[in-house]
Amino acid sequence: MPFSYVSHLSCPKCQSVYSIDEIHQLCACGSPLLVKYRLEELAFSLKPSDLMTRPSTLWRYHEWLPVQSEDNVVTLGEGVTPLIPMPRIGREMGIAHFYMKDEGVLPTGTFKARGAAVGVSKAKELGIKALAMPTNGNAGAAWSLYAARAGIKATIVMPVDAPEITRKECEASGANLFLVNGLISDAGKIVAKAVEKGQLFDASTLKEPYRIEGKKTMGLEIAEQLGWKMPDVILYPTGGGVGIIGIYKALNELLQMGWVEGPLPRLVAVQAEGCAPIVQAWQEGKSISEFWSNANTVAFGINVPKALGDFLVLDAIYKTHGCAVAVDDETILAEQRRIASHEGAFVCPEGAATFVAAKRLRENGWIKDGEVVIALNTGTGLKYPNTIHREVPILQPGDALAEDI
Amino acid sequence: MPFSYVSHLSCPKCQSVYSIDEIHQLCACGSPLLVKYRLEELAFSLKPSDLMTRPSTLWRYHEWLPVQSEDNVVTLGEGVTPLIPMPRIGREMGIAHFYMKDEGVLPTGTFKARGAAVGVSKAKELGIKALAMPTNGNAGAAWSLYAARAGIKATIVMPVDAPEITRKECEASGANLFLVNGLISDAGKIVAKAVEKGQLFDASTLKEPYRIEGKKTMGLEIAEQLGWKMPDVILYPTGGGVGIIGIYKALNELLQMGWVEGPLPRLVAVQAEGCAPIVQAWQEGKSISEFWSNANTVAFGINVPKALGDFLVLDAIYKTHGCAVAVDDETILAEQRRIASHEGAFVCPEGAATFVAAKRLRENGWIKDGEVVIALNTGTGLKYPNTIHREVPILQPGDALAEDI
Repeated sequence: MPFSYVSHLSCPKCQSVYSIDEIHQLCACGSPLLVKYRLEELAFSLKPSDLMTRPSTLWRYHEWLPVQSEDNVVTLGEGVTPLIPMPRIGREMGIAHFYMKDEGVLPTGTFKARGAAVGVSKAKELGIKALAMPTNGNAGAAWSLYAARAGIKATIVMPVDAPEITRKECEASGANLFLVNGLISDAGKIVAKAVEKGQLFDASTLKEPYRIEGKKTMGLEIAEQLGWKMPDVILYPTGGGVGIIGIYKALNELLQMGWVEGPLPRLVAVQAEGCAPIVQAWQEGKSISEFWSNANTVAFGINVPKALGDFLVLDAIYKTHGCAVAVDDETILAEQRRIASHEGAFVCPEGAATFVAAKRLRENGWIKDGEVVIALNTGTGLKYPNTIHREVPILQPGDALAEDI
Repeated sequence: MPFSYVSHLSCPKCQSVYSIDEIHQLCACGSPLLVKYRLEELAFSLKPSDLMTRPSTLWRYHEWLPVQSEDNVVTLGEGVTPLIPMPRIGREMGIAHFYMKDEGVLPTGTFKARGAAVGVSKAKELGIKALAMPTNGNAGAAWSLYAARAGIKATIVMPVDAPEITRKECEASGANLFLVNGLISDAGKIVAKAVEKGQLFDASTLKEPYRIEGKKTMGLEIAEQLGWKMPDVILYPTGGGVGIIGIYKALNELLQMGWVEGPLPRLVAVQAEGCAPIVQAWQEGKSISEFWSNANTVAFGINVPKALGDFLVLDAIYKTHGCAVAVDDETILAEQRRIASHEGAFVCPEGAATFVAAKRLRENGWIKDGEVVIALNTGTGLKYPNTIHREVPILQPGDALAEDI
């Protein structure tokens, strides 16, 4: 059996086909490219129970990941992340089967490790020696560390306002790091200029085809963790949108392989009110989004004013009868504390946003009685120390606590 | 089959026996208590291959954990953590089989989650409603979050100098948090006073018998990940010492069950030069340590001037023909960056210290050709943003990168 059943790259817009053995970025038509596999052949060779004794990492799905030689796998042991019941918050929301998929326990503390592990591994397989990318912080941190492990030189450009710890990760990795007085879109322009000179592989979101494959493993894991059954609803914090695109792709591949039965879960894109281009497009029934001016939210990872893959995100929402919801920063921060104090999970603001959205969708009846609902926490709260503020009493050695403790 | 084969509590100093169904803290003689199991009976009922299809969490070893009813398990999906090959650094050190066990991918970002998961679960089983503990930060963060999940009220006292993010975790959990202008030993005295009043369970390191059981799962995982074989050397950053005590206990239990063969790996306690009471005691051939005055190190988690379980740590070192090594802060910080840039892992200073120790022990021949060596990284570097400093260039929107990138 081959290590991978990868077949070719395909354009979802113009259907052009590209070889998997050459370096490609976007399609000539400007669309992101998607990876295709020989799924029928794979379904014939592999059955779900074959996975049961495999190591608990995302590489357990190597047959439908794009890396063709195991020698090229660059791994820090990423995945499988836990699907954690949230009984107390679920009860408060009236959602009996409410789970959180916790991506905060991946290396580098966010789901970006999935895209980086698979993207960097494939870059290594293709012989790439140097890459560049704009980032809101977490992707840059993940890619620079995985690139360091692969011996690939990374150049990272991030907004000065990106979470400080992500800057430290890039610095520790030895990457070329630059800050920009602006948004991720400004960082993207700087990277595009540098890439034009032809020395650097452009690892920008969706300009390289392989990070989606890493992120789709979230969908594969959810299906496997539910015993190869579909949940009813998956809520995902949506910035660049690759997570939701990846999950949608994963579940469709499983359908094609006959490992799960439809219908697909309804996919919900969750954004911040300060940056909600996908929500606006969905509300207007459009298939692409508009650039969101003056984007601003505490949930920095989803502060993406215009995603290159917006049409794929919106397509996934429409096809699964999903929806898109925007939530405000204040409510996100209150929810973050509530999740910690009620369920013991210290999540990132982006993750907390999905809980708020679930609550609203249950209140307005969109989520129905008895449905299985999964909220994606895309990262650990450890990366966002500034979201928590409380006055803490300071004692001197020899002091005693108050009587009523 | 019972969920747990736990039998009783036993004093390693005076051999007194206590019931597992009552709340106990230290032995009447002042020693920590250890948990005993019906291991012969268990070895008769369970074989290693039975574990292969179990979920990848530390609860896969539930038969020799102390929680008797599955309903009392308080879990955030903690464990199994990856055992990651470190080929480049291993090659530089001349250690062909060098692995890092990465505890940074546990919930709350450190190995403390293991002790908290098992300790809080057992506290819940015993009906405890409120607990208190002194901490250098990470244990308090873990215990307060797991306690929140269990519905147990936590009171946490930590030094003002503890990593700031651990304070935020306690705050988010809704715990009663106090800072003290002093060391963990000062925090311990404040907690001891509060506990005397009889309202609070004392969850101080080794004053409750169950966190060791959580931490011993590191040893169980290492043995399972190596195919139920022993490595030659395990290096562990040692503050309170529960990790090394737990690993030693785990490997002995596996020996008793006949799941592994001896000899046990040589256990190495790694400390910082600014706080090295175990190293000093070992150098002097003593069985207990002296209080270390003016303790100070950047590796805050091992800034413990006198550990209650020092005699157990030293016993584990002597019995396994291990050793104890102190390393300086500057070398630790340089090693932390080297691990990130060479292997892509952003580890905590405590973890980096074990790499430095491995290098020294290889240089002086203590680690021999061809030995299998495991360095424990006890937490993620994300919790220590201040250890990394580099000047980063700031660009304006529209800028271009230099030609030579």
